[in-house]
Amino acid sequence: MGLKGGGEFSRLGGMGKKQAELVTAETMASKQRDISVSEFFLKNRHLLGFDSPRRALLTAVKEAVDNSMDACEEAGILPEIAVELEQLTESRFRVTVTDNGPGIVKAQIPKIFAKLLYGSKFHRLRMSRGQQGIGISAAGMYGQLTTGAATRILSRIKHTKMAHAISVQIDTRTNKPVILSEEEQDWRPTMQVVDEEGKPDGAPVVHNHGTCVSIDMEAAYVRGRQSVDEFLKQCAIVNPHLTLHYRLTLKERAESGNLKPEAGKKAGKGDASESQISGFRSPPSALSVTYRRAVNLLPAIPDEILPHPHGVELGMLMQMLKDTESRTVKGALSSDFSRVSAQTAGDICERAGVNPKASPTRVAHHEAELLYKAIQETKLMRPPTDCVAPIGEEQILAGLKKEIAADFYSAVTREPAVYRGNPFLIEVGVAYAKPEDPELKSDDPVRLLRFANRVPLLYQPGACVITKAVQGVNWKAYGLDQPKGSLPVGPVVVMVHMASVWVPFTSESKDAIASYEDVLAEMTLALQECGRRLSVFLNKRRRDLEAARKRNYMELYIPHLALGLKEILELPDKEEAKIVKDLKKMLEKTHLDV
Amino acid sequence: MGLKGGGEFSRLGGMGKKQAELVTAETMASKQRDISVSEFFLKNRHLLGFDSPRRALLTAVKEAVDNSMDACEEAGILPEIAVELEQLTESRFRVTVTDNGPGIVKAQIPKIFAKLLYGSKFHRLRMSRGQQGIGISAAGMYGQLTTGAATRILSRIKHTKMAHAISVQIDTRTNKPVILSEEEQDWRPTMQVVDEEGKPDGAPVVHNHGTCVSIDMEAAYVRGRQSVDEFLKQCAIVNPHLTLHYRLTLKERAESGNLKPEAGKKAGKGDASESQISGFRSPPSALSVTYRRAVNLLPAIPDEILPHPHGVELGMLMQMLKDTESRTVKGALSSDFSRVSAQTAGDICERAGVNPKASPTRVAHHEAELLYKAIQETKLMRPPTDCVAPIGEEQILAGLKKEIAADFYSAVTREPAVYRGNPFLIEVGVAYAKPEDPELKSDDPVRLLRFANRVPLLYQPGACVITKAVQGVNWKAYGLDQPKGSLPVGPVVVMVHMASVWVPFTSESKDAIASYEDVLAEMTLALQECGRRLSVFLNKRRRDLEAARKRNYMELYIPHLALGLKEILELPDKEEAKIVKDLKKMLEKTHLDV
Repeated sequence: MGLKGGGEFSRLGGMGKKQAELVTAETMASKQRDISVSEFFLKNRHLLGFDSPRRALLTAVKEAVDNSMDACEEAGILPEIAVELEQLTESRFRVTVTDNGPGIVKAQIPKIFAKLLYGSKFHRLRMSRGQQGIGISAAGMYGQLTTGAATRILSRIKHTKMAHAISVQIDTRTNKPVILSEEEQDWRPTMQVVDEEGKPDGAPVVHNHGTCVSIDMEAAYVRGRQSVDEFLKQCAIVNPHLTLHYRLTLKERAESGNLKPEAGKKAGKGDASESQISGFRSPPSALSVTYRRAVNLLPAIPDEILPHPHGVELGMLMQMLKDTESRTVKGALSSDFSRVSAQTAGDICERAGVNPKASPTRVAHHEAELLYKAIQETKLMRPPTDCVAPIGEEQILAGLKKEIAADFYSAVTREPAVYRGNPFLIEVGVAYAKPEDPELKSDDPVRLLRFANRVPLLYQPGACVITKAVQGVNWKAYGLDQPKGSLPVGPVVVMVHMASVWVPFTSESKDAIASYEDVLAEMTLALQECGRRLSVFLNKRRRDLEAARKRNYMELYIPHLALGLKEILELPDKEEAKIVKDLKKMLEKTHLDV
Repeated sequence: MGLKGGGEFSRLGGMGKKQAELVTAETMASKQRDISVSEFFLKNRHLLGFDSPRRALLTAVKEAVDNSMDACEEAGILPEIAVELEQLTESRFRVTVTDNGPGIVKAQIPKIFAKLLYGSKFHRLRMSRGQQGIGISAAGMYGQLTTGAATRILSRIKHTKMAHAISVQIDTRTNKPVILSEEEQDWRPTMQVVDEEGKPDGAPVVHNHGTCVSIDMEAAYVRGRQSVDEFLKQCAIVNPHLTLHYRLTLKERAESGNLKPEAGKKAGKGDASESQISGFRSPPSALSVTYRRAVNLLPAIPDEILPHPHGVELGMLMQMLKDTESRTVKGALSSDFSRVSAQTAGDICERAGVNPKASPTRVAHHEAELLYKAIQETKLMRPPTDCVAPIGEEQILAGLKKEIAADFYSAVTREPAVYRGNPFLIEVGVAYAKPEDPELKSDDPVRLLRFANRVPLLYQPGACVITKAVQGVNWKAYGLDQPKGSLPVGPVVVMVHMASVWVPFTSESKDAIASYEDVLAEMTLALQECGRRLSVFLNKRRRDLEAARKRNYMELYIPHLALGLKEILELPDKEEAKIVKDLKKMLEKTHLDV
């Protein structure tokens, strides 16, 4: 060992027994290997929302419903979806989700349901619920891990006679689907509307196309704020064009079971709650409900957009120039980006000192840097924003009215804005509960409902920019109590929706939105607008209460006053009653300025 | 459309202009495609800790240092690492990390630095800093995305004459490395110790082997609690066997620059802080520091272990039986799992009713289920736990003493425990600052330092089980104020370390630990133990203060008392002084029971 270098070995005498295991560059190299993306997520399944049996159940339902909703809407079909949870053993459930979507062509089924990172939504900028190409395959992989069973899919596309039935597993070593069985089958998705008591209401509806996916998994059913029940209810609220059937069948409780809240977790406030949970110990162990659609119109189908130049980084610009179908730099700029006309593309090239007719594949690194810089310096229209579809103020108010009986409702849909080149839009709704509401107490934190592209977010509120935005507003100015840095306190429901062509989730489980400044700013503005309206209401209510109090106080004295007047003026007895009446009338007419 | 089915189309008249874009199962199929894991993480780079220029800088340093530390320790080399940050332009930095590790063999370099999900640490259960095979390639990918530049690596292994110099990029479409240039070079890692003023102290140390990685990236340097400075300082504290050189060179501030805290973010409390940040506006714009190792012994090299049967799920068991090299089920159980002797393996087979001599590859699904059940019912020794190496109470105390001048220090290293079959170990240290500490104020929340496998965690405290554990302890019982559900308040530093063969991070950026009940319970016990000790100290201190207060009070009256006595007893004047003296002496001797 030269110079003062490797002297470290001489000092290692004290290490003792472990020395035999020391490795060298060569032995290390022999252990290096590929990790398949499914191995990665299998070992890190909490990243996908499968960390507890309770959450796994919700995540599986959520992924399946997201896919069904997206498929129906893209095909212009009013969605009708059936979610069925059947308890197979103490700790095992079958999750089955059926839709009336366009169906899936045979060759695509295995990859869609048994291959991570496969899909149609990742490589585009378009508002949809799914975006990663992971979710439903992850649910199947989790089922496979915990029960060894396969994912079973039935799908029928329009104008075909038979449905395709297939069962697939995922080879986690290679992230490839393995088909276990496959056959043609006579099947049509059949849906049954039930009334409020869970009884069939009319004949079943039979569709000519659709998809049904069924997964067995280790799971636990627990009611409450993070339950499948709550998720589906909120889904129905923000998707008024959806008809949703939900059936839950629990095994009768022979052995001590899994139906209690998970160990160590207490049911949250306002949970649906302890008494109902213990009710599972005996029948009725089934639940059946239909959320019928409230509107027969699909929301506008959002457009797909091209990336906006101001949201594209240097490396991405270089990649796009390499991949373009255009023959010139100018052509690539104007055809592959939004808001770049041929004129603007020419200006950018000129500013960068790059020949507009150069071949885009031959642009050198420093030229790309010049182009990148020129783009940043060029004023461009903001990205088109009709690609993000709001729920709409009216629908938000209708949704809040379903959720809560309140004295005050307000909703704000902001104009679209842009973060990192991605158009997005924020909506906020606020409701102030009637005093008699048993769930919303005036000394509890407000109830916060979070949504992203019309999907309810039930987990990880602490990691979400929505929570941060609500905490960051000064609610004291609007008449609500608020401990420092916390959610405001009061009998209030606050809902916040972010719609975007790309929602920046904090993890693959898509439970929380990352904190981008532009997003936070838009949320804050929308919340403040609702806050101002709330404060007008609360001020008025406070004044009204004060006036009522004064009025009551005065009313108390009216009989005495009447008696006094009678005696002073020596009026007859019958006049006394008239005076009382007149005084009360006067009092009612008076505006009490408090 | 048959029956009541597809009536939805007739109701869609109102949809209008968008109808042209409706898709079918067939058009959808044509858009389905693979997503490479690098495309995925490129679009979701916030998952990897590259969401802001400031955080990107820290993440890149962290990934490189983690790798260097792991490599040195595995090879039994006392680590000496140099971290250099050089500002190239206003918003661009060059990050260079050099180590004296064993080096990397030529053929492995491109994959290790330019391929996501590649490495030696994922497929084993062994305590190390890296575990995913993502980090350093992600840093390179981010550099490439933001600057278009390649990752440059220099590596020299022992007993070779020349170092290998290579520059690589990642082809994000395929997640494969692209080599841009490659050559042999005469290079030895050279490190320079500097004194407290940043001046060279002695001759540079030259090593015979090591690796140097250099990445250019968009980044921002901001001091404070989430800075590279803080990360490296904490690294040195929990790795007393590390010698760490850190050099920062900032450009002089010609234009208005990026050196302020990021827009919209105020410097946190105790940030190193505004005044220093504005100090950058003029030279000195460089920083140079050496953290010298305090001990010349490597921590024990942790063992690699086999999976424990109780932590293996059914699907995993099936996969392991498929992959085993054993010829019998019994053999597979005893050779591929920890804590399963041949005897126990036989018992499991018998209990499951499975032939112990059957070929493991031919075990049917229902047989695997029976085996799985039998394993759950079999009592097994807990996993071996000498595979997790603690920092140790002594080292934690030494670390805390570096961090804070306190009146009270305490540390607890718990015995190893197990979550989901994975051994882990919790350590906690607590220090109560001297009242004159300017950074730790008695009405601020305690300062929490989080570590996982000796790596400081600086981001996402809210998502981390460590924060949850500290919030969950009743600190009022130990004499600290604590707002409901929050961190306790006081001039206190709390440090928590989790060591494990597999740390369950909440995201790929490895900033926060997921909340497993077993982990939470161990942390709570360790915190409570430190809390009890703290309360003994605080009680004593309170009593001492109270006694001092009483003593002062009485001292006030001694002269009056003496005067009174003198007058009553008609003593001479000089006696008065003696009485005062005697009384004071008495008071000092008295134990004031308060």
